[in-house]
Amino acid sequence: MINYMEEALKLAEEAAAEGEVPVGAVIVKKTTGEIVGRGRNRRELAKNALAHAEIEAVDEACRTLGGWRLPECAIYVTLEPCPMCCGAIINSRIDDVYFGAYDKKSGSVVSVQNMFDMPYNHKPQAEGGIMQEECSHILSEFFARLRKKSK
Amino acid sequence: MINYMEEALKLAEEAAAEGEVPVGAVIVKKTTGEIVGRGRNRRELAKNALAHAEIEAVDEACRTLGGWRLPECAIYVTLEPCPMCCGAIINSRIDDVYFGAYDKKSGSVVSVQNMFDMPYNHKPQAEGGIMQEECSHILSEFFARLRKKSK
Repeated sequence: MINYMEEALKLAEEAAAEGEVPVGAVIVKKTTGEIVGRGRNRRELAKNALAHAEIEAVDEACRTLGGWRLPECAIYVTLEPCPMCCGAIINSRIDDVYFGAYDKKSGSVVSVQNMFDMPYNHKPQAEGGIMQEECSHILSEFFARLRKKSK
Repeated sequence: MINYMEEALKLAEEAAAEGEVPVGAVIVKKTTGEIVGRGRNRRELAKNALAHAEIEAVDEACRTLGGWRLPECAIYVTLEPCPMCCGAIINSRIDDVYFGAYDKKSGSVVSVQNMFDMPYNHKPQAEGGIMQEECSHILSEFFARLRKKSK
């Protein structure tokens, strides 16, 4: 069986290699197990505030599945989604959200707010801390390298 | 002086003509008064959950201004932004948000939640009810036509 969080981590590593904050995401069609969307953070290179891993993955999954709804899908993302990405998950009707590291500053599943518990018209199920150590490590390593460079 | 909400309404009318829920948005560089991004709801035609007016406008404005930050910018949107779009406004560091109609179901500036008052790393200033009658009317007219058609 595919370890989807490992697939998301591979995308986060690609982001790190490009000098981007390493976050990766995959969207899985639960009925087939197929990965229908992949994304990695590309904010700096794309020069675009929208270029978060989850947004790129939702964009690709909508194209793969041919509609704005992503039924019977789960998203695996290495970092707790920000409010924009939580909103995109609600808007695309993704069933399940699995994330790795917690984000105290903008994480909107449990850290800053619990967006999926609010009275929106879709409430995804969510679970955090999946492969938390690996997902946190790639981030702390990235920021440590960045600090070293800027000294 | 340009009435920016009227510009946003023109985009909402274009959306209605395409059979989309009529929402339009423009982003203005406050220092020059120039419109740097325009968007209209294209969710059905684009078959994409991300294709809200504000997201399209942020995308265009990032390309126009050449970076993920949109400093000294204001957004004018005919409908209160959803959580995804409020998050995109925070992520792109837009200063001011002016919206027309209120959205009780997913509006996240004041209706379902007050996202801009939460402890995220950017807090846009917001004002609702701008040209509220016109912005609401285009929506109610669209849904009335839709109901008539489906009878």
